[in-house]
Amino acid sequence: MENNNTQLNLVFTNHVGRELDALASGMNPDSVFVLVDTVTGQQVLPRLAMLSQVASRAYVITIPSGDLNKNLDALSHVWKQLSDNGATRRSLLVNVGGGVVTDLGAFAASTFKRGIRFINIPATLLAAVDASVGGKTGINFNGLKNEIGTFRNADAVIISTLFFNTLPLAELKSGYAEMIKHALLTSAIEYNDIIAHQVEDLLPDDLLQLLKKSVEVKRDIVTQDPTEKGLRKVLNLGHTAGHAFETLAMQRKSPIPHGYAVAYGIVVALILSHMKEGFDSTEIHRYAAYVRETYGAFAFDCNQYPVLLQLMGHDKKNEKSGSVNFTLLRSIGDPKWDNNVTSDDIKAALDIYRDVMHLA
Amino acid sequence: MENNNTQLNLVFTNHVGRELDALASGMNPDSVFVLVDTVTGQQVLPRLAMLSQVASRAYVITIPSGDLNKNLDALSHVWKQLSDNGATRRSLLVNVGGGVVTDLGAFAASTFKRGIRFINIPATLLAAVDASVGGKTGINFNGLKNEIGTFRNADAVIISTLFFNTLPLAELKSGYAEMIKHALLTSAIEYNDIIAHQVEDLLPDDLLQLLKKSVEVKRDIVTQDPTEKGLRKVLNLGHTAGHAFETLAMQRKSPIPHGYAVAYGIVVALILSHMKEGFDSTEIHRYAAYVRETYGAFAFDCNQYPVLLQLMGHDKKNEKSGSVNFTLLRSIGDPKWDNNVTSDDIKAALDIYRDVMHLA
Repeated sequence: MENNNTQLNLVFTNHVGRELDALASGMNPDSVFVLVDTVTGQQVLPRLAMLSQVASRAYVITIPSGDLNKNLDALSHVWKQLSDNGATRRSLLVNVGGGVVTDLGAFAASTFKRGIRFINIPATLLAAVDASVGGKTGINFNGLKNEIGTFRNADAVIISTLFFNTLPLAELKSGYAEMIKHALLTSAIEYNDIIAHQVEDLLPDDLLQLLKKSVEVKRDIVTQDPTEKGLRKVLNLGHTAGHAFETLAMQRKSPIPHGYAVAYGIVVALILSHMKEGFDSTEIHRYAAYVRETYGAFAFDCNQYPVLLQLMGHDKKNEKSGSVNFTLLRSIGDPKWDNNVTSDDIKAALDIYRDVMHLA
Repeated sequence: MENNNTQLNLVFTNHVGRELDALASGMNPDSVFVLVDTVTGQQVLPRLAMLSQVASRAYVITIPSGDLNKNLDALSHVWKQLSDNGATRRSLLVNVGGGVVTDLGAFAASTFKRGIRFINIPATLLAAVDASVGGKTGINFNGLKNEIGTFRNADAVIISTLFFNTLPLAELKSGYAEMIKHALLTSAIEYNDIIAHQVEDLLPDDLLQLLKKSVEVKRDIVTQDPTEKGLRKVLNLGHTAGHAFETLAMQRKSPIPHGYAVAYGIVVALILSHMKEGFDSTEIHRYAAYVRETYGAFAFDCNQYPVLLQLMGHDKKNEKSGSVNFTLLRSIGDPKWDNNVTSDDIKAALDIYRDVMHLA
């Protein structure tokens, strides 16, 4: 009962055009469509079209950029463009952009005529490391992130660092935070490799190598638990507190990039890991120092604790009950999911966060 | 990469309430929602609610009835009702209605929070025999039938003849045509069993037994070819011409039920089967007599041939090229899919159709 490919075809290359043409040729589609947003349409597509015959000849569908536009209107626009321009069950959709484009485009493809083939080309580091595997597709709906979607793998994902130099530095750093998270879930060796660098100092091919390892961490986890029944929850490391920080920042009208919020959220998770699972406290300080240097500190005081606790309780991943669920680490490379943590524990951890982040 | 159950749980029973309560109890959902349309909400739900605690306590979502409302607005309404009323990943949606409700409800469930569980309770014979297995979910979009959807099995389908007596006779006959189709694909024994009766003369439990056999035919086919790469195409028997008749009737502003169109379409398919595959012509006459008695005849003359040919060429299932693709029978129980048929063959078959249907 399934039109998914279960074998995800991940290609790491900086020869994006050649690779896209070869992949598309092998798939022998009736017609090819490229989905971009207003930003990647201007900054990435012209370069891609110079490198790829397929991209240069495809019918281009454009949606407005930004997470606010990851919505039903944009989705409906993509469906309509496909339908009006003769897309068939054998057509191919190539999604070129950040997570909004790849998530929304993948959802459109997974539902158009009950599923057509699609290739993702992440144009941001965050999309490459976070959204390129896992098969999560979707849109925001009714004010809720990713409320509507499917699980469906791309037929291929072409991962390249070639287009990242069009990004603001904050975008790059945001993606790097997810790479740090993957390394923390894997081993001290991977982790030390990652935090030995600032992302902006890495050469494109060196970043591609680190990225490859990082994406493979996620792929291994997702392969073992595609629908988030257990193990996959470790990927939420840093996200319970991180989402609360992200939402609070939005409420304050000074939004922070998703990866920054995750970087701060991991500080809280490591503190709770120390409190509940004996995680080495010297690693907390080493990590906090890297975060302060790279991302600065997300600031709040104890007056914000109630709203932060409430935001953590409303995290979609904790919907089972009122308790708050964290992924913790026993040590680097040894995660433990489904830890219920009390409000008092969280308040204590937020106190320590403010201390190690030099806010108190 | 999959949150489908591949094992479809089909329950044939006239103890619908008891069965629904047992199934729902075993699934232990956070909350239960029932989807109906304005017709089943009035005619079926009150009876179901008397028989089932689960149904009586569920939050009811209602969409307008009719194929015209199998659209994005109705889908969006269902998503919003689920979202506003606290549906979680562990909620359960029970779809009670004809094919519009079960297709649309299944699509809503397969995409809400990337997929929640759902049970279908077909309230029409057509939905029971045609839409209850196969995992096709979807909505009409951009003027095209089922343009948007997914492949996803229900967690359970409860098939009963209990609510069919609320249906107009034409609805019952429409569903029976799909049962005739399944029998033609299977064996002369099944086929003779089916056309020995008029559906309105069958007792509910006898109809349930015939229905069980018929649904199992479809299940066996779909299990072998879930995504319609080959064998499953045999289920299109009668549908290439049938869809053309259905659309022509709509254009004439005197629509005919889907099953009637299929019944007429099968006449054309059997004639082509005789012309191309040596199908026994006496069976054509026997079948045509049953159709004339049960469904009457769909009338047209040779002035409509061009529009009918065009409508057949635009059947979604033939999108590969300009040629028209029919499922044919070598004999009863021996189908052959992917038969390309020329315009001249079709015109000849339409001539013979008019003859055997006593129209010429």
